[in-house]
Amino acid sequence: MNAQQLFENIKKKGSFLCVGLDTDIQKIPSFLLDSDDPMFEFNKAIVDATAEYCVAYKPNLAFYEACGLKGWTTLDRTVKYIRSNFPEIFIIADAKRGDIGNTSSMYAKAFFNQMDFDAVTVAPYMGEDSVKPFLAYEGRWVILLALTSNKGAFDFQYIKDKEEDKRLFELVLQKSKEWGNDKNMMYVIGATKAEELASIRNIIPDHFLLVPGVGAQGGSLKEVAEFGLNSQCGLLVNSSRAIIYASKESDFAEKAGENAREIKDEMTELLQVKGII
Amino acid sequence: MNAQQLFENIKKKGSFLCVGLDTDIQKIPSFLLDSDDPMFEFNKAIVDATAEYCVAYKPNLAFYEACGLKGWTTLDRTVKYIRSNFPEIFIIADAKRGDIGNTSSMYAKAFFNQMDFDAVTVAPYMGEDSVKPFLAYEGRWVILLALTSNKGAFDFQYIKDKEEDKRLFELVLQKSKEWGNDKNMMYVIGATKAEELASIRNIIPDHFLLVPGVGAQGGSLKEVAEFGLNSQCGLLVNSSRAIIYASKESDFAEKAGENAREIKDEMTELLQVKGII
Repeated sequence: MNAQQLFENIKKKGSFLCVGLDTDIQKIPSFLLDSDDPMFEFNKAIVDATAEYCVAYKPNLAFYEACGLKGWTTLDRTVKYIRSNFPEIFIIADAKRGDIGNTSSMYAKAFFNQMDFDAVTVAPYMGEDSVKPFLAYEGRWVILLALTSNKGAFDFQYIKDKEEDKRLFELVLQKSKEWGNDKNMMYVIGATKAEELASIRNIIPDHFLLVPGVGAQGGSLKEVAEFGLNSQCGLLVNSSRAIIYASKESDFAEKAGENAREIKDEMTELLQVKGII
Repeated sequence: MNAQQLFENIKKKGSFLCVGLDTDIQKIPSFLLDSDDPMFEFNKAIVDATAEYCVAYKPNLAFYEACGLKGWTTLDRTVKYIRSNFPEIFIIADAKRGDIGNTSSMYAKAFFNQMDFDAVTVAPYMGEDSVKPFLAYEGRWVILLALTSNKGAFDFQYIKDKEEDKRLFELVLQKSKEWGNDKNMMYVIGATKAEELASIRNIIPDHFLLVPGVGAQGGSLKEVAEFGLNSQCGLLVNSSRAIIYASKESDFAEKAGENAREIKDEMTELLQVKGII
């Protein structure tokens, strides 16, 4: 999916919501466990209930890999289900991959050829040749980790470079934006650092940012929008647990839909205030 | 597997060789393609021919993921085959994972519960809580990326911290060694930087180092041993392509065995010179 199609869909839906499919077999309603593929049944119900209110889904690969072969099958079925029923929706493999060039090429093949993801999250530690192979696919995206929302973000991402007097995450943004462009690269920017967004926008004014950590992790949507929105929206804000685990009863999908609609309504207002829609 | 068992096996075999199973369906001998699971048949033959000369195998996850469900099945079968036929051998998932705590827990479950790996390679960018969940498994290991052997290593790993006047990879070593210990953590140190090994050994004298890049990528085994060996060996040196693609003909396994034996013989000598065996 290209940037224009993504933006059109954001405007049409009045939403820049990404729903994180961190589907944990231990946390889904127990009555689903009787089915052949409980995680898929859960995902299908969540997708059917929320697709109207979001523009992206983000399966978190770890949760599928933890179930072995069965999980990998569920993931594949989930991507196919979204693609065939909601073709306008952007699908992100939250995989945090990254390795030497020939290996990253294989990961790119896994997510863009074997499976039909629009984007994959990539870790920057190994540098340019670990990222470039993912950029060779027309209409597909790299979403590079820059500033994450977890406690461990402070261990290395804030290290200040002696020569350039810039922090590691700023150097990641500055260097990596030369490897691709705002039509094939996005960045992960944790929502718990909304105050950093203004300075980040100085480095990458036009790129989309994937912002996790709104909701369960405590980030404020309003602040993120204030500092992060650009004229083409430029934001995908993710919510996982607050939506998919809104209820553990038979109304889980309905509640997920309600929570997604609430966030979407807030987003519509923020887009209107900014004059984007 | 614990450190003592690993060291015993190194002494017994006179080898600290790790064979990288970067099994590429495009590169294996064409006559194998008629079988139901060509990548597994290839791995099985390679393992049978090389197990005598090595102490570890390292499947590179990307190569299996690139084949989708079929690849994931092959990986699972390969790990089981090694485990049941060569139980003394250390098995590494070269996966470069790493995410927020609850997600890393799921990856740990995937590699240590669902599959029976002894170790998994982890990327450090997201800090402590992205690494710790892997350390909760008795007898299992994290192998943390510190200094890699690719060109992109120079993009961020050499950034010099303003406050501590240390490079990023040195800070990764220094901080992360407090998260675990030399009985549950190893580090990836690229062999193309043999001259760095002496200063790295000052920070982590006792940890095992996983050294890729000897052979196809041009590192020198002698130099690596000179700077990297400690009294408990402390090294696993990986070779992938130089062993597994030694021949594309029907003698591919035999040639792989010969190349592995050659490296093993050199390692035996280096261990003897150092007085370890």
